[in-house]
Amino acid sequence: MTDRKIDEGTRGVFIIAPTPFTDRGEVDDRSTDALVDFYLECGVTGMTILGVLGEAPKLAPSEAHAFLERVSKRVDGRIPIVVGASNPGTDNLIRFSRTAMDLGAAGLMIAPPPRLRTDDQVFAYWDEVLSRLGPDTPVCYQDYPQITDTVTSVSVLHRLIDRFANLVMLKHEESPGLGKITQLRQRSDRREGRRVSILCGNGGLHLPQELRRGADGAMTGYAYPEMLVRVCALFFAGETEAAEDLYDLHLPLLRHEQQLGFGLALRKEVLHRRGILASAVTRHPGPRLTARDHEELDQLLARLNRKLHATE
Amino acid sequence: MTDRKIDEGTRGVFIIAPTPFTDRGEVDDRSTDALVDFYLECGVTGMTILGVLGEAPKLAPSEAHAFLERVSKRVDGRIPIVVGASNPGTDNLIRFSRTAMDLGAAGLMIAPPPRLRTDDQVFAYWDEVLSRLGPDTPVCYQDYPQITDTVTSVSVLHRLIDRFANLVMLKHEESPGLGKITQLRQRSDRREGRRVSILCGNGGLHLPQELRRGADGAMTGYAYPEMLVRVCALFFAGETEAAEDLYDLHLPLLRHEQQLGFGLALRKEVLHRRGILASAVTRHPGPRLTARDHEELDQLLARLNRKLHATE
Amino acid sequence: MTDRKIDEGTRGVFIIAPTPFTDRGEVDDRSTDALVDFYLECGVTGMTILGVLGEAPKLAPSEAHAFLERVSKRVDGRIPIVVGASNPGTDNLIRFSRTAMDLGAAGLMIAPPPRLRTDDQVFAYWDEVLSRLGPDTPVCYQDYPQITDTVTSVSVLHRLIDRFANLVMLKHEESPGLGKITQLRQRSDRREGRRVSILCGNGGLHLPQELRRGADGAMTGYAYPEMLVRVCALFFAGETEAAEDLYDLHLPLLRHEQQLGFGLALRKEVLHRRGILASAVTRHPGPRLTARDHEELDQLLARLNRKLHATE
Amino acid sequence: MTDRKIDEGTRGVFIIAPTPFTDRGEVDDRSTDALVDFYLECGVTGMTILGVLGEAPKLAPSEAHAFLERVSKRVDGRIPIVVGASNPGTDNLIRFSRTAMDLGAAGLMIAPPPRLRTDDQVFAYWDEVLSRLGPDTPVCYQDYPQITDTVTSVSVLHRLIDRFANLVMLKHEESPGLGKITQLRQRSDRREGRRVSILCGNGGLHLPQELRRGADGAMTGYAYPEMLVRVCALFFAGETEAAEDLYDLHLPLLRHEQQLGFGLALRKEVLHRRGILASAVTRHPGPRLTARDHEELDQLLARLNRKLHATE
Repeated sequence: MTDRKIDEGTRGVFIIAPTPFTDRGEVDDRSTDALVDFYLECGVTGMTILGVLGEAPKLAPSEAHAFLERVSKRVDGRIPIVVGASNPGTDNLIRFSRTAMDLGAAGLMIAPPPRLRTDDQVFAYWDEVLSRLGPDTPVCYQDYPQITDTVTSVSVLHRLIDRFANLVMLKHEESPGLGKITQLRQRSDRREGRRVSILCGNGGLHLPQELRRGADGAMTGYAYPEMLVRVCALFFAGETEAAEDLYDLHLPLLRHEQQLGFGLALRKEVLHRRGILASAVTRHPGPRLTARDHEELDQLLARLNRKLHATE
Repeated sequence: MTDRKIDEGTRGVFIIAPTPFTDRGEVDDRSTDALVDFYLECGVTGMTILGVLGEAPKLAPSEAHAFLERVSKRVDGRIPIVVGASNPGTDNLIRFSRTAMDLGAAGLMIAPPPRLRTDDQVFAYWDEVLSRLGPDTPVCYQDYPQITDTVTSVSVLHRLIDRFANLVMLKHEESPGLGKITQLRQRSDRREGRRVSILCGNGGLHLPQELRRGADGAMTGYAYPEMLVRVCALFFAGETEAAEDLYDLHLPLLRHEQQLGFGLALRKEVLHRRGILASAVTRHPGPRLTARDHEELDQLLARLNRKLHATE
Repeated sequence: MTDRKIDEGTRGVFIIAPTPFTDRGEVDDRSTDALVDFYLECGVTGMTILGVLGEAPKLAPSEAHAFLERVSKRVDGRIPIVVGASNPGTDNLIRFSRTAMDLGAAGLMIAPPPRLRTDDQVFAYWDEVLSRLGPDTPVCYQDYPQITDTVTSVSVLHRLIDRFANLVMLKHEESPGLGKITQLRQRSDRREGRRVSILCGNGGLHLPQELRRGADGAMTGYAYPEMLVRVCALFFAGETEAAEDLYDLHLPLLRHEQQLGFGLALRKEVLHRRGILASAVTRHPGPRLTARDHEELDQLLARLNRKLHATE
Repeated sequence: MTDRKIDEGTRGVFIIAPTPFTDRGEVDDRSTDALVDFYLECGVTGMTILGVLGEAPKLAPSEAHAFLERVSKRVDGRIPIVVGASNPGTDNLIRFSRTAMDLGAAGLMIAPPPRLRTDDQVFAYWDEVLSRLGPDTPVCYQDYPQITDTVTSVSVLHRLIDRFANLVMLKHEESPGLGKITQLRQRSDRREGRRVSILCGNGGLHLPQELRRGADGAMTGYAYPEMLVRVCALFFAGETEAAEDLYDLHLPLLRHEQQLGFGLALRKEVLHRRGILASAVTRHPGPRLTARDHEELDQLLARLNRKLHATE
């Protein structure tokens, strides 16, 4: 197990991992191992498991537990693992969080419950959750209103950052939401508040802009993690144009995968085609690809490969 | 025209008026006059026109203008008229508001646009609207998230009340939302902020509780306005049990009329049956009563009349 | 265990049970037993557990299992128990459903997942779920768009009723939605489709109208179940006016309890005051009563008791 | 005025036009003329005015009327003009539609009202609207649930296409929604129903995939219409790879502009920088660009121009 938990200084690419299933819908241990190995080879900074892409709410608790153990064992401390812990009940959330941390999680990714309204409602939820988790459990705030219909204002984030030292990372997914990154960075640049890590999700659809505005990397599940890793590395090395050149080659596929909900099936299929997952199955209710969807993906992948070859 | 505009001290019953149509769907001037006369006979404190119940967004601007003129003329200054002025465009809102005030409106009822999120978004909207309307145009804030999906926090209301003297009234409709009244009243009771008028809508479904918590009356369209008037009068006279006794007699019909969206057709039908409106027609898209709905209403009205007779 | 499962002919009052907690938030076995005893004394036809009111998503799976066992044992076959089984994952749903049926459930209550759109999406969901549950597992369709934002059309219900014999009951909660009952009944009256049981929820806010339109009873959690039982019995005996007289006495409290979300806290408090629950605690995130809310409830209960005495 | 109205065979690029304002927020006639000239030079097939991008709900009716007249006069029959006519009231919709057609519109673009649920609700709305418009008024169905939260199923579209000859075009914007195009095309290919024109909106984010699935072109407001025109022309000429090569050059800016709501400000700014619009002002409530947003746009435009130069 890695000793380091995530913290305010965490940067790089935390890849969002799907949960591999067999064709019969059972959690696939062998593909899980293969997936971990693949991500490590890609050079990701960390992994995030049991999120939306991981179909967490469709797993039995025992399955989630076993999957976390399997991943943790395979990773063997080489990279930090962030574990999705969102839950409609706070007792359940806390209980699972303790288990995850005991199993070696580097931190938790938590989204607020659906349809909170008003700043006070959002703050009050986190006040309870972050207090109960306690100072030793670092939290990544999944800010994804496209899924939750809960919008978190910048001022609530500021209040939470000021109050809770264990809020160390924002998974920024709101869109439109580029300005939010700038507002958060301006405040910490002016020394008016703590600087937290910002990793960007939402399929990576605006990653170059996000990095330019001060994001620390990506936390998303694009099926070519090596691109995310390279783009972030180039950005951090100041080679922003080279970073964008590479990113733009992938943008057609990336924006195809970014389709909300449907993207899950696409990503699993790409990972299947790349030889990582034995099966691209998703659990019900979940998206399914038609023959026409497969054909479309053929074309997008063929184009991507042609372009990648051409630039080698 | 009445000289008095609405202000923080306004109390009583502002009846929400439907816009009467003929069977062919045209604005019905004669029924408009009859409606005004009826409301005056009922003893209402004021009228609110061109709101949701008034099907305002389905009127041509010229129709809205003519209706306002007609009502204003018929009322002839005997009671204040609040005019609905919500609009997706602020220029349009301001323009119509000026017209309405010129025609003798006592104030405007405005709801924020749909699906605002975060306190700052809500505040920013009102900052623009209340500033542009200026200090001489009193505004009733229609707080009706069941329709707008925009929730206004108590703290935003406090900020707006502190900043804008022309925000003089809250039309309280959020539900559940009884606590909101208490929070607003506690603040002004502690002299921490200005006390504004609170009139309650949402069909009157919680009117006694709202009055006990400090509301100043009702602003809703229940088709027996005389009940609302009497209940408020009794409450203000300290005869709360008598008030509730009368209210409870009406509660079965009132909660039937309160059905969101559908209630419009019911109310127009009741006003038609009471001889006020020549037609119960609503404009498309709008609810229509089936034969079974009519039969149900027969039963509810028959029961109400029996109960009212029994208590005479 | 009762031998009879729910079926198309089921009628009466299935009371929706909260899950009792101790002040420390643990499931309270003693209060669970007391609750069962109370419901049996009230004469309810059946119980429905682990629904929204039962805070099911906030229980650990082991707690849900133990609660179901406890209730089942205490009921000891005297009345049927419907068990809430809604789940974001169908595998989880099926697994829990099997467990529940094995533990003696008379049927399952299932709501479709949130935010389905189009008739085909709704049908496709149920096609999978009802097929996999199989013909021996009777299902009550919880039709509650106020919570799920999934609206089920009458024609989808018809298609499902025609296709799946295990769909035996509708928990009707949509509002406005009285016409839906009539449309369903007209079809079965014309012998165009199977007649299913319709029990009405939504706090009982329109119960008399629903019964007149052909509903078979109530499935809701009003804290005076004896009223629901008596009202249904009177209706079924043709004494509709007496039924409504009794119902109307309770309507002020019933509509107070019916406040969406907030009602949970009110119901637990009323059951606590009536001596059934040792504690009125709800789990986080959940509503909490303020001192002012308690005072308001005092008044409502005092009025109800006065009225009930006066009519004895 | 062009003689041809839009019909089932319409293909190409209908550019969605913003409504130009002066810095003071008044409709800017001179920029309107320049915009028309620019679009004609770009070679667009048609124009679509008074849609969401046109800020139609924020115009006074007289402004909308004057703008339509101005555009119509400037176009002078050279290309067809589709006019947005969505309206919360059907009478208003019909009235404005007649005016628009009298002023030379080639057809109307209409979106269903917000938050319809169930297939029957959607069908019933259109039944009224399409019947009342009559057979001589061709309609483009704006299918944009991201804005309306009304999802239209494929089977409702089939029913409407079968029933109403004046429904000639679909503005496809639902996302994820590529499969919808395929389902519509499969049906008409199998001669089971009329083939309608499908033009794609949603900022053009999936245009190549949409064209491959059988779309007839684009109806969106990307600020480089010449790209849309060229991409469609190349596709129709069978040069799909060349089409995608060009498209992909623009994709970084296109996906930046596609940000829901915020994109309006970006597009107006790009058109301003390109010398078409005198001012990039949007009306309140509307998005505003910060200094940082401007800087970001600088970078995106600079990159685009470099790439375009490099490929010349």
